[in-house]
Formats: sequence, structure tokens, C-alpha cells
Amino acid sequence: MDTNTHVEELLSNAVRASRALATASTESKNRALELMADGLVAGAEALQEANAADLAAGREAGLSEAMLDRLTLSDKRIRGMADGLRVVADLPDPVGEAIESVERPNGLAIDRVRVPIGVIVMIYESRPNVTADAAGLCLKSGNAVILRGGKESLKSNLAIRDILSDALVEAGLPRHAVQLVETTDRAAVDLLLAAEGRVNLVIPRGGEGLIRAVVEKSKVPVIKHYKGVCHVFVDARADLEMAEAITLNAKCQRPGVCNAMETLLVHSNAAAEFLPRVVPPLREEAVELRGCEKARAIVPDLHAASDDDYYAEYLDLILAVRIVDSVSQAIDHIARYGSGHTDAIVTEDEAAARRFVAEVDSASVMVNASTRFSDGGEYGMGAEIGISTDKIHARGPMGLRELTSYKFVVRGEGQVRT
Amino acid sequence: MDTNTHVEELLSNAVRASRALATASTESKNRALELMADGLVAGAEALQEANAADLAAGREAGLSEAMLDRLTLSDKRIRGMADGLRVVADLPDPVGEAIESVERPNGLAIDRVRVPIGVIVMIYESRPNVTADAAGLCLKSGNAVILRGGKESLKSNLAIRDILSDALVEAGLPRHAVQLVETTDRAAVDLLLAAEGRVNLVIPRGGEGLIRAVVEKSKVPVIKHYKGVCHVFVDARADLEMAEAITLNAKCQRPGVCNAMETLLVHSNAAAEFLPRVVPPLREEAVELRGCEKARAIVPDLHAASDDDYYAEYLDLILAVRIVDSVSQAIDHIARYGSGHTDAIVTEDEAAARRFVAEVDSASVMVNASTRFSDGGEYGMGAEIGISTDKIHARGPMGLRELTSYKFVVRGEGQVRT
Repeated sequence: MDTNTHVEELLSNAVRASRALATASTESKNRALELMADGLVAGAEALQEANAADLAAGREAGLSEAMLDRLTLSDKRIRGMADGLRVVADLPDPVGEAIESVERPNGLAIDRVRVPIGVIVMIYESRPNVTADAAGLCLKSGNAVILRGGKESLKSNLAIRDILSDALVEAGLPRHAVQLVETTDRAAVDLLLAAEGRVNLVIPRGGEGLIRAVVEKSKVPVIKHYKGVCHVFVDARADLEMAEAITLNAKCQRPGVCNAMETLLVHSNAAAEFLPRVVPPLREEAVELRGCEKARAIVPDLHAASDDDYYAEYLDLILAVRIVDSVSQAIDHIARYGSGHTDAIVTEDEAAARRFVAEVDSASVMVNASTRFSDGGEYGMGAEIGISTDKIHARGPMGLRELTSYKFVVRGEGQVRT
Repeated sequence: MDTNTHVEELLSNAVRASRALATASTESKNRALELMADGLVAGAEALQEANAADLAAGREAGLSEAMLDRLTLSDKRIRGMADGLRVVADLPDPVGEAIESVERPNGLAIDRVRVPIGVIVMIYESRPNVTADAAGLCLKSGNAVILRGGKESLKSNLAIRDILSDALVEAGLPRHAVQLVETTDRAAVDLLLAAEGRVNLVIPRGGEGLIRAVVEKSKVPVIKHYKGVCHVFVDARADLEMAEAITLNAKCQRPGVCNAMETLLVHSNAAAEFLPRVVPPLREEAVELRGCEKARAIVPDLHAASDDDYYAEYLDLILAVRIVDSVSQAIDHIARYGSGHTDAIVTEDEAAARRFVAEVDSASVMVNASTRFSDGGEYGMGAEIGISTDKIHARGPMGLRELTSYKFVVRGEGQVRT
């Protein structure tokens, strides 16, 4: 089938499925999620066979070990997908929830009620487990989803999709509630991004290059984050033991993720005591440190940091360190170099904390906590489909509610406007 | 000044102003709004002088009487702008409101707090009063706004902008919180729509052509509605007296606005009684009726409706009439021809009402009320900046809250993630 015809089919199937999903019962959605989970565990052998073919082709194509690892559907990852779907089944259904209800003086009763968004396109890279995670969240929130994974994982994704589709049918829901782009032709993505009116939202997940290309082309609203350049600011009045623990956690606990710290800002009044204290344990964790001139005056053997270092999302055991003279300077640094993802202050000074919280314009702003908590699960959403640094629709971690829209339901007894 | 330089100045001024506005006090914002209102009334003479120049040029250019009327800043319209600003001053400030607060088992306190969106670009056509209305709502919600009105009204808009700017400065707020594109060069709009990262939201208001052009070009999120093809469905079990009153109100009370009815759907079981009843009073209001074959079998002298009539937003005293055999057919008609704006059912049958409300995918769905109520003021928002038929961020009438985003504020006592 040519790409145009394939995408047209995906779109019309998705629009039709989304109409049925909008009024699907919570019970049937949960049943589908449970059946999906069972199906993935029961079908592990077939999944791993398909995955072996992807892995062989990936090795042939010279993928790095890190990419091959991300691509692998181990027993543990398959169980992880199944568990994830069961978690989503247990979460409250956002659809139908009344967000706000008013009765007007003329007797009209007006409810703002959560409804699904409609058709969501999800574009991601090589991890095939995203296929099940995204499908589960979109289904529970009543949205039809069109999934476009990395070309390296197409066979694995097709195998996962087959299991999910069977579960949907068995639960009495439309098979096309979850669809997969079956071609690696890039034109398919362009066609989906041009389908304004039939696709309601695009969520890209992956490297900054992928996401910029999606934003550049899309006629459909996109929610995304480009990168996470997260800061910890150790204030003049920080508890230095706490600051040390947060610094180490934010940098080292999982350096490859978007909520890991990339730049440490230290107030000049604390630097002489804090830097000599925090550098040795960071080095023990094999962190490479790149400091500003003032930091290097205190810890002479730091590498020199350039302007590029302050913009960098290392996703690695590298840390930029800069000394600032005030809360204002810290806020200005974050405004200039940050990515609006997650930034933390460590301080015992309530006025400094309040100012930081009010003026740092990021999706998550933290006081005396590690940036690593910026996560849908940690915020009590149960699961997340991604993190947004946009300010439209959803900001920060996006759970089920953030995958909904609303409508106004107005009930009267014949009122007319005068 | 060339267009590039002018737009660059607007953008950097707006970003700077938005940072200051994000933490501006409610008192200072309200004071600015009151001063703006006073300034418009006191400056009426200067406004009307500028407006006279626009009107003379418009007459020269052959603008229609309707366009000249919309362009005119009468005493009443100037008072209307001032009153509108005072209404906004009296509305609660949405900024800082906690939307949701949770305490997690690890002791983290997480608040989702409303914050301004940042920089908003508003693009509209000839009515200069939109300049003050939009500026007031953006200011109260803490956003910097860049206004781009119709080229016919540039002198009027500049005069209004000068008064608003003076009020901002007098209230101690940044002059550039409200800016106006001072050139009629269309390239200015293209530059603003490309300014992803500095402009956070674009709101176009005007004809479908203007709005489609904005969506086509914009790299920035756009919230809009293309048109309002609103339906009233008179069900088999409608109270026909109520149905008549709602039909007349929805079509005739103000036919030129987006929430006026464009197509009347009548259940076949009610048609033989309802059509002969409703046609005479509609004709008394000079409404031209275009019916389907079945309707013409009941009222023979109706014009014949084509498929185009069902898609049409007449904004005029014209009404398409179609007979359907069931609630399902009514819902299908609305799904196919509607614009997702506002649709109403008239019925005494609670099951039919529930089904209509659940399955009609429109921003506002009404039971036994006129579509004309679809309006921010009527919904208790106090004022609206526009109506959205999008499903992302805001749907239906948009008031102050819909002009905000949120951030997560996380407070701990040194928590780290394990």
C-alpha cells in the first residue's frame, strides 16, 4: 500500500474509533487494559521473536550498544509494559469528571465536563515499550492514538500492536483505537502533521532534533519539551548537608534523564564552604566538573566552563558549576540558559524561596528537593505520557487528565437570550 | 524603521515586560485598568480625531458601510471600552490561584499554581475596541500582549495604545505590557508567527480566511475558531412552544454572530406539527428558509437546501432546515456539517438529552436553551477574549483563567529520590 493511502486509512479509522471511545465505559476500557497486559505476558515469545529480527537488523546497521539495549524487549521489559497497563487500569477515569459547575441567575446550569481530546499522534524513537505505555494512557483517557515509533523497532512494535488490537476487540472496543504507522517512509509523518482537524494533538518524544522537526512542520498542536537543562541553586542560607545530598542525587542518581541537574549554581557567600565539600563526593561518582572563574579560584583543578556548557543538556556525568552573587543572579542565569523544565533552590531563607518560586519561569520549581522528583509518578499522577515545557494546555508531567479536553454542558428549561 | 527591526523590538520588549508582569500585584494591575478606563474617557476627543482620519481613508478606499460602522469610535463605543476595562478590574485575579494541592507520602508538598502564559499575540480585523478589550484581559492575567489590528484602524489603534501605555506607566507597570504593531506590512505578522519560544500563544479573531492563514503559517500555538455552524435539534418529544421560542431566539436575536443558529434539525415525528408552526414567525422576522425534500413536502414553498447550505455559516437571516429520523441522525448530521461550536437539543426525553450531550462533540452542548448563550459573559466568566473550537488548552468561551498556564511548586525538607 502506498504511504498516502495508508495514512488516509489510519486517519479515517482513528476519527471513527475516537467517536466510539468518547462514550466507552470505564469498565470496558479497564477490561481492555487488563487483556492487553495478559496478552503481552502470554505473547512474550512472539514479541521476542519479532524483537530478535529488529535487533539483528540493528546490529547489521551498526547501532550502538546503548541503542540496541533500548531496543531490547527483555522479559523484564515485557513484564514492565504489562504492569504499566495494569497501573493505568487502576487509575480513575478522567472522562466525564465535572471540572466546574455553576448555576446562573437565569437558571441555566453549566457544567465544564472532561472529554477526550480525540485523535492523538505519538512520535517516538527506539524504545518499543513506549508503544504499550502510550496506548494505555490514550485508551484510558478515551483518545484514539496513532503511534509512530522508530524505524529500528518496527517489527517489535507491530507485534505489540497486534496484541493490543486483539485485546481491544475482545473488550468490545474499536480495534483502531490503537494504530501503528506501518511504513518507515518519512512522508507518513508529514501527512499526519498536516492533518489539521483530524488529528487533535501531536506528542513527540525523543531528541531535540526530532522534536524541532515536528514543530517546524506541524499544522496540528504539539506538546513537547526540547530538553531539560535543570539547575540546583545553593543559596547563601542553604543547609549545606542538605545541599550536598540534593546535588549528588540530582546529578548522579540517573544522569541520562531530562530531570537530572546539568548546572549547579552556588551563592558566593556559600561557595567557599560548599564547593570544597561537594566536589570530592561528585568526583567519587566520576562526575566531570566544569566551573566558572570564581569556582576555579576556590577549586583550582576544575575544567573551565564556557557559555556552551551553561546551555548544555549533558545527559551524562558532567556538571557545570557557576558562582552567583545573589538570588537575582541565579534567577537571571536560569532565565537565560535554562529550558523551563525543573529548577530547585536549596535555602532556609523563606523570602529567597518565595522569590525563586515566583520568578523562575519553569514547569516545576522546587524548594529543598531534588530535581529528580519532576515526574508524573512522583507527583501522584500514576503514570505520565511525557513532560511539557510548553505553557499551552499542559505544563510539566502529563498524566491522564492532561490527555483530556472539556466541553460546556448547558441545561435549561427553555431559556432564550434577551 | 524597517519591519524586521520593529518586530524584534516588539518581541524583546514583550519578553521583558512579561517577566515583570508575572509578579505584578493585583492592585497595580487593577489600578492600571482603572487609569486606562479614565484615560479613554478623558481622551475621547483625541481618539475621535484619529478615528476620523481612519474613517476618511476608509471611505476613500471604498469600505462598505458595515465596515465603516465597525471602524467607528462613537462616544458609546468609547464608554463601552472604558466600562469593559472596569469590569475586568473587578474580576478575581487568576494568577497565583492554586489549582490543585497534594502532599505525597514522602512529605513533598506539590501545588499546581496558575501563572501567566507569557507573551500573547492577538490578530484581529477592523474593530478598534478590540484593542482595549484584549489589552485589559491580557494585563489582568499577567500576560504581555502584542496587538495587530486591521490596517484600516491603525491610527485609531495607535491613539488607544498611547492612552493604555500612559496608564501602565502611571500604575508602575511596564509600558511594553501592551504593544501595537505599528506597520501595515504583512511581513510583520509572519515574523511574529515564526517567533516560537518568545511568543507563547497567538489568538486570531476575524474571518475564516484570516484565521486559516494564521494557522497555516504559525510555529506558535494558535487558539481559534474558524466558524460557528450552530444547530438546534427539535426532538420527537420536544415541547413545541419551547422549541419555537428557542428557534426564533437562536436564529433572529442577533444573526451576525458565531453562536447564532444556522441549521434547524427537526425529528420526523415532530415535523408535521412543528414546521407549519415555526415557519410563519420565522418569515415574519424576514428569515429565508432552505429546506430538505422532506421539509418541502410539509411546507411546499421552502427553497431547496443543498449540501453547501448545511456547511454554511450564513451570519444572516437565512436558515437551513432538515428533517432527521432519529437522535442518531441528528448527531451524525452535526458531526459531518457542524463546526464544533455550539449545538442544542430541545426535548423532554432525558435519555435523548443525555445521548445528545455525550455524543455531540462541540465546545458547548445545550439542552432546552438557545445557542445564543454560548458566551463568556453568559457563562459567568465576566468577559471573554474569544471562543475556541480547539480541544487543546481552552475550549468554548475563553476568560481570564483560560489566559493562564500553571507551574508545579514543590516544597520539601531535603528529599532525594531513591
